[in-house]
Amino acid sequence: MAWIEPEVKEKPKKPMFLCVLSSTKTAHIPRLSAAGKTAELTDYTPAGDAELMETGNIISVPVLPMTPPYDTPTPAIMTRSALKLTDAPYHFINSGLIVTPDVSCIDLKAKPGEDIREPIAVNDVQGIYERAKLLAIRLRNQADHVIIGESIPGGTTTAMGVLMALGYDGNVSSSADENPLELKRQVVEEGMKSSGLTFGCLKDDPMKAIACMGDPMMPAVMGLVAGFQGTETSVVLAGGTQMAAVYALIKHMGLNTEKLAIATTRYVVEDKSANFIELTRALGVHVVYVADPGFGKSSLKGLHRYETGTIKEGAGAGGAMYLAGLFGITQDQFRAEVENVCKLLKAGH
Amino acid sequence: MAWIEPEVKEKPKKPMFLCVLSSTKTAHIPRLSAAGKTAELTDYTPAGDAELMETGNIISVPVLPMTPPYDTPTPAIMTRSALKLTDAPYHFINSGLIVTPDVSCIDLKAKPGEDIREPIAVNDVQGIYERAKLLAIRLRNQADHVIIGESIPGGTTTAMGVLMALGYDGNVSSSADENPLELKRQVVEEGMKSSGLTFGCLKDDPMKAIACMGDPMMPAVMGLVAGFQGTETSVVLAGGTQMAAVYALIKHMGLNTEKLAIATTRYVVEDKSANFIELTRALGVHVVYVADPGFGKSSLKGLHRYETGTIKEGAGAGGAMYLAGLFGITQDQFRAEVENVCKLLKAGH
Repeated sequence: MAWIEPEVKEKPKKPMFLCVLSSTKTAHIPRLSAAGKTAELTDYTPAGDAELMETGNIISVPVLPMTPPYDTPTPAIMTRSALKLTDAPYHFINSGLIVTPDVSCIDLKAKPGEDIREPIAVNDVQGIYERAKLLAIRLRNQADHVIIGESIPGGTTTAMGVLMALGYDGNVSSSADENPLELKRQVVEEGMKSSGLTFGCLKDDPMKAIACMGDPMMPAVMGLVAGFQGTETSVVLAGGTQMAAVYALIKHMGLNTEKLAIATTRYVVEDKSANFIELTRALGVHVVYVADPGFGKSSLKGLHRYETGTIKEGAGAGGAMYLAGLFGITQDQFRAEVENVCKLLKAGH
Repeated sequence: MAWIEPEVKEKPKKPMFLCVLSSTKTAHIPRLSAAGKTAELTDYTPAGDAELMETGNIISVPVLPMTPPYDTPTPAIMTRSALKLTDAPYHFINSGLIVTPDVSCIDLKAKPGEDIREPIAVNDVQGIYERAKLLAIRLRNQADHVIIGESIPGGTTTAMGVLMALGYDGNVSSSADENPLELKRQVVEEGMKSSGLTFGCLKDDPMKAIACMGDPMMPAVMGLVAGFQGTETSVVLAGGTQMAAVYALIKHMGLNTEKLAIATTRYVVEDKSANFIELTRALGVHVVYVADPGFGKSSLKGLHRYETGTIKEGAGAGGAMYLAGLFGITQDQFRAEVENVCKLLKAGH
């Protein structure tokens, strides 16, 4: 599979990148999330991602977000590269962070998500949704094409949770080399039990699916999509199985998905432990943009880890590469910039 | 004095309005601030202003921001009108709010300001400044002309505080009919004493002037101005004596003020208790835009109160009217929209 040139009928005049940053205590379950060196350090990952995306380095967090065992650097290095190469407008959105970054975020006043094994996983789902919708209405005239990424450790497990509650097979992807799918399934089953849910029982109530099994990133992205509806602004969800889960929630809510696309990386699409393609097909996603940074050609060994299945996606990396493509950036130019970012960070070796 | 058509050599292509929302416990001193029905209710004023500017009404705050004794409605009605008429891009910036609005704000992670009679009035001045500067760097490519307003009850007293510390006469304006200048001067004197300051002693250290005598709105606006420097983006500070104080801080910091203007309302300029014109002249402000909404011609009596000196300015109202002028909106059109906003609120009668 090659770097896919985005097929956009008319090139957007005002693209904008948004990244929703959230936390869920589900990430504290040992061995569940690999989006950080340890389960505790995952609390710092979205903040570190934001600082890195904005400045090219971390500012306040104690350690660069990395995935063990090879300390593969966060996919935010790709997003940083795309934002730098394109100079595209962007914003970070805080929807329930445990640790906030030292760069400014638009605040949706959300609380961090609870462990989904608790009866309530997300508080005030409707409030988060409404505030995000108002924000999108405010941003309407600033953008004709919006790419929305996310950074939330533990997010593939909550994605599995809502997918099961909506009635979809939840073989989600993972940032780890070895996807701990059995552990995720066990956590989700416990969560469904504690909320009194069965497979597919919330297919007509996606907001409750989030409240019981989801995370605070979900209603934020949904609200943004809702706020851009009925305008000329088209939206691309930038992420793998997590954004497929959000797409499912949006569809079950009855929102229009005609102009809604998904962009992700080749690494998610090729993940044999997950079922991204089957899922997007089942959901009837019209367009999936698949970005390939060609890290196999890189001189940096840390980047090769992406080729063998570490990390795969996050911080809207696939969508950020798609954005770079819209600006005419080639795969080689993009990879060269990612290598520059890594060199400045002394990471990825 | 008439509605002044802004004289801009080249009309900006991408104007943007920013409103910095802050709190200082100085506003809790009885009879000091009239930006709210009672001293306690002033905590809700910036949040109410933001909700009103975004939606045309309050959402989460208990009462519309009003100034006694005639319950004159907040100047945010003017800002709301300008944003609605122009559809200009805008953002709210939370720099130390006690009460946050139910509409999204860009968060600078600032703490609310303390009572200036305490030794420390603002914590982490440098951090707020740096985060605001980074934000402006992010916004550079989204705007070529930025208008920055503020909403902070008690803000004229902190303005007097920093002006005195920098060595300027601090006859500041007020949102009340009767400017409690004596009380303000007494509070400022107590504050200078508790910080060990004398008149003008901090003329070479504006950051310390904020830390001892200012409020968290100040370093936010200064950081924004710093972040837009060296670009094509010009900045207008929208406010009365408070923004003159910020201008003074910027000047004493050694930042370039060539492209920095102030916009305010006729009511501030005509305030005989204050010395806005003398102050801006002493500071060498190149351009002051003076906006006149002509509320004397309004059928709503609440708006007449502005003509007799209640409120005068706030929430960047003067700058918002200047913005409307840039879009070709006439005084009559502007006033008609303000009346519409009041009618929907059932306010201003």
